[in-house]
Amino acid sequence: MEKFLKENERIDDLELDNLKIIQNKNGFCFGIDSVLLTDFAKTIRANSSVIDLGTGTGVLPILLSSKTKNTTFVGIEVQNDVAEMAERSIKLNKLEDRITILNTNILDLKERYKKGNFDVIITNPPYKKLNSGLKNEQESKIISRHETTASLDDFIDVASYLLKDLGEFYMVHRPDRLVDIFYLMRSKKIEPKKIRFVYPNKNKNANLILIKGIKNAKPFLQYENNLYIYNEDGNYTEEILKIYNKK
Amino acid sequence: MEKFLKENERIDDLELDNLKIIQNKNGFCFGIDSVLLTDFAKTIRANSSVIDLGTGTGVLPILLSSKTKNTTFVGIEVQNDVAEMAERSIKLNKLEDRITILNTNILDLKERYKKGNFDVIITNPPYKKLNSGLKNEQESKIISRHETTASLDDFIDVASYLLKDLGEFYMVHRPDRLVDIFYLMRSKKIEPKKIRFVYPNKNKNANLILIKGIKNAKPFLQYENNLYIYNEDGNYTEEILKIYNKK
Repeated sequence: MEKFLKENERIDDLELDNLKIIQNKNGFCFGIDSVLLTDFAKTIRANSSVIDLGTGTGVLPILLSSKTKNTTFVGIEVQNDVAEMAERSIKLNKLEDRITILNTNILDLKERYKKGNFDVIITNPPYKKLNSGLKNEQESKIISRHETTASLDDFIDVASYLLKDLGEFYMVHRPDRLVDIFYLMRSKKIEPKKIRFVYPNKNKNANLILIKGIKNAKPFLQYENNLYIYNEDGNYTEEILKIYNKK
Repeated sequence: MEKFLKENERIDDLELDNLKIIQNKNGFCFGIDSVLLTDFAKTIRANSSVIDLGTGTGVLPILLSSKTKNTTFVGIEVQNDVAEMAERSIKLNKLEDRITILNTNILDLKERYKKGNFDVIITNPPYKKLNSGLKNEQESKIISRHETTASLDDFIDVASYLLKDLGEFYMVHRPDRLVDIFYLMRSKKIEPKKIRFVYPNKNKNANLILIKGIKNAKPFLQYENNLYIYNEDGNYTEEILKIYNKK
């Protein structure tokens, strides 16, 4: 296994079908948001061509390759070393036939692909606006967390271009950006059709939202039941254990 | 009291500072949504001039006259007989110095008032699109429930015109219209700043949303904690009892 690793890297077990992932101990490591998004998006139809805008470690396509059938994925990552690391995770899992990593900025995708080239978009974009919050982090974490190389507007604009008519768009983000998200999605003809709020527990406010949109669909927003991460006793809820395949 | 009443009308006690309201037994009677909106909007500053778009029985200004200080209200109602009934409720409560009822369509308000004429907008507009749902109801209920005489777009457009810079907008509506609401509000420069979801109980999906917007404000959406109407035992929750002044 060690031949796959560079300095400061480790291999983590994804605890799903023996899948592994390479992560840099000092870099941005995937979190529960990515796992919840793959659960939310697990209804992606068989044989879909999927593109992941900002794939990072490649965690979304790696997990979804196991949760969906005959799907193919392109994972876009702007950071050279992160894209190269994701590429090694694909090889480690022998998923080269299903997942391709492309080291480019999402802003360049309109030149590379024709309009409507993909059936499905998945994305876990940076949550924070460029000038918000502290940025005393190393550069790769800043790019993963802040809208440095592309804004939310860019992500949704590119998604709309790449998505075929009635194609599906899945995103995880923060509740405080919900107005931006709905406004931009409708402006770009990706109608928000389903939303799920994720709460740390029953006594706190939601801190994540899972959103599904459909290109050129009619307006009607459905709410999935709220998802709580922890019980009152501080343990994972039944639903989270199920999502993590622990039940 | 009976001198205030016409056929099929009754006087209901609002159980707040001895306030009363006249309602038509066969018409549209106010519901918990109006009571929750007055609780949500009770932070309206003293001395504000407030306009209620679609006042119906006048329940919002009547309740808010007691929950706010030195405020004045104009209640707009398109239905002649409903406006006239609201007018009698104002007299019954001796609130003529605080509340004026105006029998007109909200679409005519741009001609009557100058831009930015009001500090605050409150509105409990019709929830249903014109062609949605069954409409085998009497006409006055249809107008109260469906977007017959003005659409949500019209309500928000007129609100934006009437609202002064940094003026406040309070609305109650249905969660399935949230995309429309956020899209229209931002389009019309009333930035959504606060939202509260109202649930029948902890096991059901939200069925009402309370929204506060501010004219020309910067984007940032805050969530108030979820409001549940009923406990698991089927009784009102503590918070609802408090809102109804029963605690």
